[in-house]
Amino acid sequence: MSRVLSIQSHVVFGYVGGKAAVFPLQCLGYDVDVVNTVNFSNHSGYGRFGGTRTTATELSEIFQGLERNELLLPDRLLTGYIPGAEGLQVVADLVTKLKSERPNLIYLLDPVMGDAGRLYVAPDVIPVYRRMLPLSTIITPNWFEVETLTDVKLTDIPSLRRAFHILHQQYGVPNVVISSIPLAPWLRSKLPASIISTLNDDPADYLLCISSSASTNATDTANLLESAVHAQIVPLLPGYFSGVGDLFSALLLAHFNPKDAEGVSRAASQALSKTHAMLQLTHTHAETLPEDERTQTDDEKDGLDPLRKVKRMRGRELRLVQGQDILRGTELKEFREMVPWTGFWEAE
Amino acid sequence: MSRVLSIQSHVVFGYVGGKAAVFPLQCLGYDVDVVNTVNFSNHSGYGRFGGTRTTATELSEIFQGLERNELLLPDRLLTGYIPGAEGLQVVADLVTKLKSERPNLIYLLDPVMGDAGRLYVAPDVIPVYRRMLPLSTIITPNWFEVETLTDVKLTDIPSLRRAFHILHQQYGVPNVVISSIPLAPWLRSKLPASIISTLNDDPADYLLCISSSASTNATDTANLLESAVHAQIVPLLPGYFSGVGDLFSALLLAHFNPKDAEGVSRAASQALSKTHAMLQLTHTHAETLPEDERTQTDDEKDGLDPLRKVKRMRGRELRLVQGQDILRGTELKEFREMVPWTGFWEAE
Repeated sequence: MSRVLSIQSHVVFGYVGGKAAVFPLQCLGYDVDVVNTVNFSNHSGYGRFGGTRTTATELSEIFQGLERNELLLPDRLLTGYIPGAEGLQVVADLVTKLKSERPNLIYLLDPVMGDAGRLYVAPDVIPVYRRMLPLSTIITPNWFEVETLTDVKLTDIPSLRRAFHILHQQYGVPNVVISSIPLAPWLRSKLPASIISTLNDDPADYLLCISSSASTNATDTANLLESAVHAQIVPLLPGYFSGVGDLFSALLLAHFNPKDAEGVSRAASQALSKTHAMLQLTHTHAETLPEDERTQTDDEKDGLDPLRKVKRMRGRELRLVQGQDILRGTELKEFREMVPWTGFWEAE
Repeated sequence: MSRVLSIQSHVVFGYVGGKAAVFPLQCLGYDVDVVNTVNFSNHSGYGRFGGTRTTATELSEIFQGLERNELLLPDRLLTGYIPGAEGLQVVADLVTKLKSERPNLIYLLDPVMGDAGRLYVAPDVIPVYRRMLPLSTIITPNWFEVETLTDVKLTDIPSLRRAFHILHQQYGVPNVVISSIPLAPWLRSKLPASIISTLNDDPADYLLCISSSASTNATDTANLLESAVHAQIVPLLPGYFSGVGDLFSALLLAHFNPKDAEGVSRAASQALSKTHAMLQLTHTHAETLPEDERTQTDDEKDGLDPLRKVKRMRGRELRLVQGQDILRGTELKEFREMVPWTGFWEAE
């Protein structure tokens, strides 16, 4: 079996960052080496939290301790939220070193920078992530992070093609997986027929997951790349859940088989299916809570009573422990397979 | 299901402290709130490590963050290695507060101070632990920690009775569980017949586990207490394994049923059986490693080549992930039941 080095945030209460990623990886049989980039009481979505960020110096002391003791032995590497360019650079240096020593290292890079048009890291983090992209095996940016990394505003299929092209060829990223994409009309209309046939009239009811895998020699050629694109949709569940992307990335890395040419889309099918089942479980639980723990987001009311938001967040923490059989796959009822998006690269 | 607040050390690589406790608790269905009292690259047994201790200030900021957000909701509390009296006092204040707000809180206190005659915390930690003892539901000191807390040198059955008496009555500890006791001749000769009958000639081949539960009103009476004492032995496996006590304490807390009058000895049977099975699995794996990863402890050789010790330690890390079905109980072949030690309190 295999060993994962996970470098991301730690919260005492709830399931984001490492708390959302490590347990699933362990359930799936991986030894996980866990580096905490922050130690917070809870995720920032609660509005208030206590704790400290791990400094760049502390990170490099931990990495040096591992190196001196020859304990840097991962087959797979997972990086998530790392606050600040200085700390990220320390991680980038480690990844460069690991890649040179362990050429078969599978690196899933989640460039956690922001969401929904809002950056929640320092802007000087962006160039560091751009330099790290060529080291990755798979990246899992969200919609906003794709735009931030590529400087392409995603408004239509051509712009999406351009973004993939930049990531695959300019930055040499072999695989890109974007989960939880709002199903804009321009996306909906171009989807594979097998997906469209399952849609009802309101695209707002769905989230789209896309994977794009460059042909192995794609990064050698300067010509226009035509990557293998797969897609699938899941029903959108009401309200916001935290840690979903962290769980998805962990499952994607856990299920990825590098010997399988379709490895990324197959792993994405597993990650999509299990993540959605976990959200369903969490949503169903949240519905059973007292009314004041399932309020709607309302910035004004939330502002007047900080605990209003806190209670809502608390009730929507992922049910990872209760749903551990979903993670193991023994309790997975619905399988959502990523389907080839033939024609994605064909001009209109 | 139930929620555990775990406060102990964190290491990136390997399984001690929280890394040995949290996954087993999660596998057994507990949501675990995880506070890291240190963030080290690996446990100190490797001889070298990098990382930092969480300061008393950082700990109280984390606890304040949890409190402000009303996230201090544990039904069970587990505390382990906490370096330094100042940090321990912050934890002691939290426990006092939690106990007053949540009278049914089940608190397993592992007074991690040292082993084999050697103290590995600052001496000013001892009085803080003594003040914390009355807050506990169960404590899991090792042999040396019992001597340290009670100031009784354990050399015969009367001294062991005296130590239990001090813990139960002077410090008001309801339950004491001591695992991994070297089976000294004076202990061996007094064991329950059902245990002696299973022994071979060399007591050095075994470790003893003892539990002592005060009758519920024991702490009210000033008279000599006669607690319910149970015991069982396990074969001693060669060499040193780290994190065993941390795993045992987590399993003991996980399996404890407060509604069961025999709850502690029953939970101890589970913890003893699963911990020994996990050690057996780890030992069997270590046997398969290359020769230079299964050297014997040799201070001189270890001193000359630090990596000699490192490789030995690495090969003996608990196989928690590989043995997760042991933790869940689905792969537990041998059950080692704690048996009543009738006559323990009877004078010769």
